[in-house]
Amino acid sequence: MSINVDQLFEVPPGLRNVVVTETELGDVRGDEGFYHYRQYSAIELAKTKTVEDVWFLMLEGRLPTAGEREQFLAEVAPLRVLPDEVREILPAVAAAGAAAGVREKPLAGLRTALSVLAAARDLPPLWDVDRARRKADAMLVCAVTPTILAALHRLRRGDQPLEPRDDLSAAANWLYLVNGEEPSAQQVAAIESYLIATIDHGFNASTFTARVIASTGADVVSAVAGALGAFSGPLHGGAPDRALASLDEIGTPDRADAWVRAKVASGDRIMGFGHAVYRTDDPRSLMLRDIAQGFGGDLVDFAVTVERTVVDVLAELKPGRNLYANVEFYAGVVMELCGLPRSMFTPTFATSRVIGWTANILEQADEGKVIRPAARYVGPPPPAPIS
Amino acid sequence: MSINVDQLFEVPPGLRNVVVTETELGDVRGDEGFYHYRQYSAIELAKTKTVEDVWFLMLEGRLPTAGEREQFLAEVAPLRVLPDEVREILPAVAAAGAAAGVREKPLAGLRTALSVLAAARDLPPLWDVDRARRKADAMLVCAVTPTILAALHRLRRGDQPLEPRDDLSAAANWLYLVNGEEPSAQQVAAIESYLIATIDHGFNASTFTARVIASTGADVVSAVAGALGAFSGPLHGGAPDRALASLDEIGTPDRADAWVRAKVASGDRIMGFGHAVYRTDDPRSLMLRDIAQGFGGDLVDFAVTVERTVVDVLAELKPGRNLYANVEFYAGVVMELCGLPRSMFTPTFATSRVIGWTANILEQADEGKVIRPAARYVGPPPPAPIS
Repeated sequence: MSINVDQLFEVPPGLRNVVVTETELGDVRGDEGFYHYRQYSAIELAKTKTVEDVWFLMLEGRLPTAGEREQFLAEVAPLRVLPDEVREILPAVAAAGAAAGVREKPLAGLRTALSVLAAARDLPPLWDVDRARRKADAMLVCAVTPTILAALHRLRRGDQPLEPRDDLSAAANWLYLVNGEEPSAQQVAAIESYLIATIDHGFNASTFTARVIASTGADVVSAVAGALGAFSGPLHGGAPDRALASLDEIGTPDRADAWVRAKVASGDRIMGFGHAVYRTDDPRSLMLRDIAQGFGGDLVDFAVTVERTVVDVLAELKPGRNLYANVEFYAGVVMELCGLPRSMFTPTFATSRVIGWTANILEQADEGKVIRPAARYVGPPPPAPIS
Repeated sequence: MSINVDQLFEVPPGLRNVVVTETELGDVRGDEGFYHYRQYSAIELAKTKTVEDVWFLMLEGRLPTAGEREQFLAEVAPLRVLPDEVREILPAVAAAGAAAGVREKPLAGLRTALSVLAAARDLPPLWDVDRARRKADAMLVCAVTPTILAALHRLRRGDQPLEPRDDLSAAANWLYLVNGEEPSAQQVAAIESYLIATIDHGFNASTFTARVIASTGADVVSAVAGALGAFSGPLHGGAPDRALASLDEIGTPDRADAWVRAKVASGDRIMGFGHAVYRTDDPRSLMLRDIAQGFGGDLVDFAVTVERTVVDVLAELKPGRNLYANVEFYAGVVMELCGLPRSMFTPTFATSRVIGWTANILEQADEGKVIRPAARYVGPPPPAPIS
């Protein structure tokens, strides 16, 4: 189904601006091109901190001291290791559909593995346990998610999964587990920034899904499994491989102008541009462009040219819409520069966003009331006689 | 965590009465004690129709003709059979946690199996396909759900799963697949009524979850997997085994009065009583009581006594609250009379509710806009300096 540009950017989302709950986790100020996590500019965090620092911040409400950081890393390290119950079933999960030539479905595979973990460990409903236990379960899910995704990826290719390394940070570990070789310092720094910048971003549909499920008091995995489903939806956004596919389609810089015009004329969606909240430059896109330009090279130059062309042509054809590159556009470029295969672009996003989802789940669990809106019945009036 | 009765029945749910969308699927009129599916009284349907008739109604908007019914049954029959990809992994799914003595988690097992199915079949995003394909995927999920749940249950006990029988209706088949013997006509009629009456019930949290996920354009299983998570939450309601456990706890009719008073005094929740929407008798409860009384016997007499006592004592201690038995209370009794083991009470509910979820998913998919509300940031003002 092709999506009309007008439809994509102009149909207001359901419940737009309707406040569901209060949060102390952060905010997105679309008009200012600014977002923050618990008071701290997310972009500044992304430029200066580690994933683990910000993970701690999301859970505890403050950045860790040196001692707290050390303790947090020690807590996380064993949680990264594949639990036996998951390890045993993972080859069968990876094989699902492979013989029939079905493409890899990493998010579905992750959901399957987490679902097995929840059953095997009898993860308790949030409502039945205290915050310490909730947090422990949330940390387990976040820590094991990259290991599961990387293991499924390698199994699918006939390789053995690698064991997570305690001497590597979350960012470095991710690149190592997927690619099987130690990444360069520049690659680690790039992915670290990307991961931090994508941990949370307001009430997008997956975060909202996680909170609705958590509001019933269900366990952490139930809420994350639902979020993963929403995250996989084409209207959710955040699939960096799609933006890179556009670059492939364009092929050379001189074809960019004609390509955009043809897309707009046919009512097709232009992946990597426009955002539900930002009416100015997406601050994540600006940061990722800087990072990409730090690597340099033909792909980066090409991407910068395409970005400028698309923004200019959209400004001409759709005046007043303020359409800019979103997080997807340069994220794909950066991941490519870090050696990640395209099938692992969206999974990379998932490894950071799960930290945001679980922080939201913990906050929602404290609220203790179910999210239950209403629908307006618009069919013919009941009761009809049953023949 | 014990839940205070006041908290359970008086804290308004998040988004209460906020209209998210329009629906033609049905409505719940809490003040009248009436609900309907597409114009038809759900209770009248439950008393006079088959599960398949109402399933067709939910999908097509009208009750089937004789010819349509025959065709629908022929379409559904092969979809009930376990797909090979699921059949292969099911023993491992059933075994998760069994060696460690972890209790059976049927809903998590179903989620795992459906997740494998989605990956193996590469189920397409709703947004990428037409309604015919969406409907086919929805029918597959609904048809295979009872088979998966029953197979997991039998595997967990060391029994081989049974093959669904084309000569049995959905209701009869469910009892046969779980219990391994053909049910009596009275049992089939009882479960048929229960299943029909629980197919849909307004915008409860699981149905809303399914719609939020579907609104991103994700595939049917993504939406159902999320709904299953919400459904498992203790605040969602609808766990008929909990109500039956209360009867066990009370033990004998003469102890009912003291038991309720002690519960209320300690701020405990009384399972099986009170509802977020009904302010009068829950019509499902009235129907299920009639069905139970048709069977008769000590358990039924005991349940009727307890119901009367609880309602009277709550009216005395919590005047003006209008607390009545909800669908959970007699559902447990009816399922017990039908020979279902308690671990399969909530799964029985899931086999019918999945029909309602998927009808909601299909309706949401037609809308084509993402459900994305907002949260109000209430933390300290940003930006804070990063040390």
